Amino acid sequence: MPSNDKLFAYNLGQIVPLSEARLHVSDLSVQRGYGVFDFVKVQQGCPLFLDDYLNRFFQSAQLMHLELPLSREELQQVIAKLIDLNQLPEAGMKMILTGGYSEDGFTPMNPNLLITQLPLTLPSAEKVAKGIPIMTHDYVREVPEVKTINYSMGIRLLQEQKASGTEEVLYAKNGVVSEFPRCNFFLVTQDNTVVTPAKNILKGITRKNVLTLAGHRYKTEVRDIRLEEVLQAKECFLTSTTKRILPIVRVDDVLIGTGTPGKISLQLLQDLVELEEKMVSATAK
Amino acid sequence: MPSNDKLFAYNLGQIVPLSEARLHVSDLSVQRGYGVFDFVKVQQGCPLFLDDYLNRFFQSAQLMHLELPLSREELQQVIAKLIDLNQLPEAGMKMILTGGYSEDGFTPMNPNLLITQLPLTLPSAEKVAKGIPIMTHDYVREVPEVKTINYSMGIRLLQEQKASGTEEVLYAKNGVVSEFPRCNFFLVTQDNTVVTPAKNILKGITRKNVLTLAGHRYKTEVRDIRLEEVLQAKECFLTSTTKRILPIVRVDDVLIGTGTPGKISLQLLQDLVELEEKMVSATAK
Repeated sequence: MPSNDKLFAYNLGQIVPLSEARLHVSDLSVQRGYGVFDFVKVQQGCPLFLDDYLNRFFQSAQLMHLELPLSREELQQVIAKLIDLNQLPEAGMKMILTGGYSEDGFTPMNPNLLITQLPLTLPSAEKVAKGIPIMTHDYVREVPEVKTINYSMGIRLLQEQKASGTEEVLYAKNGVVSEFPRCNFFLVTQDNTVVTPAKNILKGITRKNVLTLAGHRYKTEVRDIRLEEVLQAKECFLTSTTKRILPIVRVDDVLIGTGTPGKISLQLLQDLVELEEKMVSATAK
Repeated sequence: MPSNDKLFAYNLGQIVPLSEARLHVSDLSVQRGYGVFDFVKVQQGCPLFLDDYLNRFFQSAQLMHLELPLSREELQQVIAKLIDLNQLPEAGMKMILTGGYSEDGFTPMNPNLLITQLPLTLPSAEKVAKGIPIMTHDYVREVPEVKTINYSMGIRLLQEQKASGTEEVLYAKNGVVSEFPRCNFFLVTQDNTVVTPAKNILKGITRKNVLTLAGHRYKTEVRDIRLEEVLQAKECFLTSTTKRILPIVRVDDVLIGTGTPGKISLQLLQDLVELEEKMVSATAK
């Protein structure tokens, strides 16, 4: 990130070159990993589904007892300003709200707000066509309904993930599936029902959109999923803002379906891309 | 912290005024709350039990797959330099090792090392004489054996703690007691056995010292403790580097013993203070 010297960021009330966006080490994110964030995809200058992301960001802040220093309208203005300044065709806009500069290194003070925008690379057509292998791990996120900055487990598992030749880690506590560190999980049953976990998850905006799109074509269910059901699924995929829909072809040592991306997964990805394009066109008008 | 402008800190390879110790926002502590730390008490220029703290710091780093940019000897030299520059009679020396400036905001890079020293106020004689009320919360820390910077839960509970008129939160998952966000837990049984939890805790250096001291006078046990046993204890206390031993007089709504600090707790505190003074004298010689 520091190498990109043509971008601007919002840092502590000011728009500054990204390379100069710094926090004092007394910030509670550094001292205690205390903060929340959210991440919006910006396509051709349009922050997609911004309302949904802002709703969630404000809710995360509230649940962690952090007050945003900007109103929703001011926040939207800063985002628009950064989009205008940075001129990135495809980007991610990340808003981080920390516990602020703490006097005692533990008690939150006035929260610090950072907003950065970086170029985004979506999964390649090749990766989508091939699908990805994943591993599972017995874990459930703390305060899963809040988008905190705590990713200790997901990052700590990166070495294990690499060693296992997989690309993501699916959390399943006591055999009940919840989510990935940064993505939601879906499966398609043998009778073409699209299912996603109900509990102990961060409610992804892409998850919500995919559920809606799936409802137009298939039966959908939001409920508990056990690992055994995953291994017998017809198809599996993950959803996220940056990855859209990515087919899963192997879970631990077990091939899913035929071991290639499923038809329903690819159909839903096409529907999602069309929805995003429709949003971009609508905004451009 | 930023208000104290006469102190120096170690930041990214350099000794700088504390007020200038800053991290770029791409640091993984800010982006993902990813880092480990440790905290040594410095009394009259002597970093107490430094070897134990350094051992734990290096172990935490290893368990989170972070490599320290300094050798143990270099780290000791920086600590000595800061003690010499800052001239604080009673202080805390905090070492933080983060996941570094991450290119993709998720994958650890070269870890960043920060060392700050701040004045420390130990609990007042009045507070020790009165003891503190605590609340309990159904929770167990993630990766409890590692001193990560993740304190989301402890900080999030501060409001509830304040509302309940208590001063600390004791974690007890499914009725089994582990620890406080920043302290270890001890109880004294009706037959004067000193007991502390064995599992799902960060192994405090003060906990270790108190266990040794207690062993000279009483029977000690390191084992699981259930909440019901806590409520029937003769005495309870917490231990930490900054708090030494602090008697607990109420747990949720239940008074412990007579509702005043217990004799054994106060005896052990006296023993600990003497041990610390002996260490300081030995170093000064």
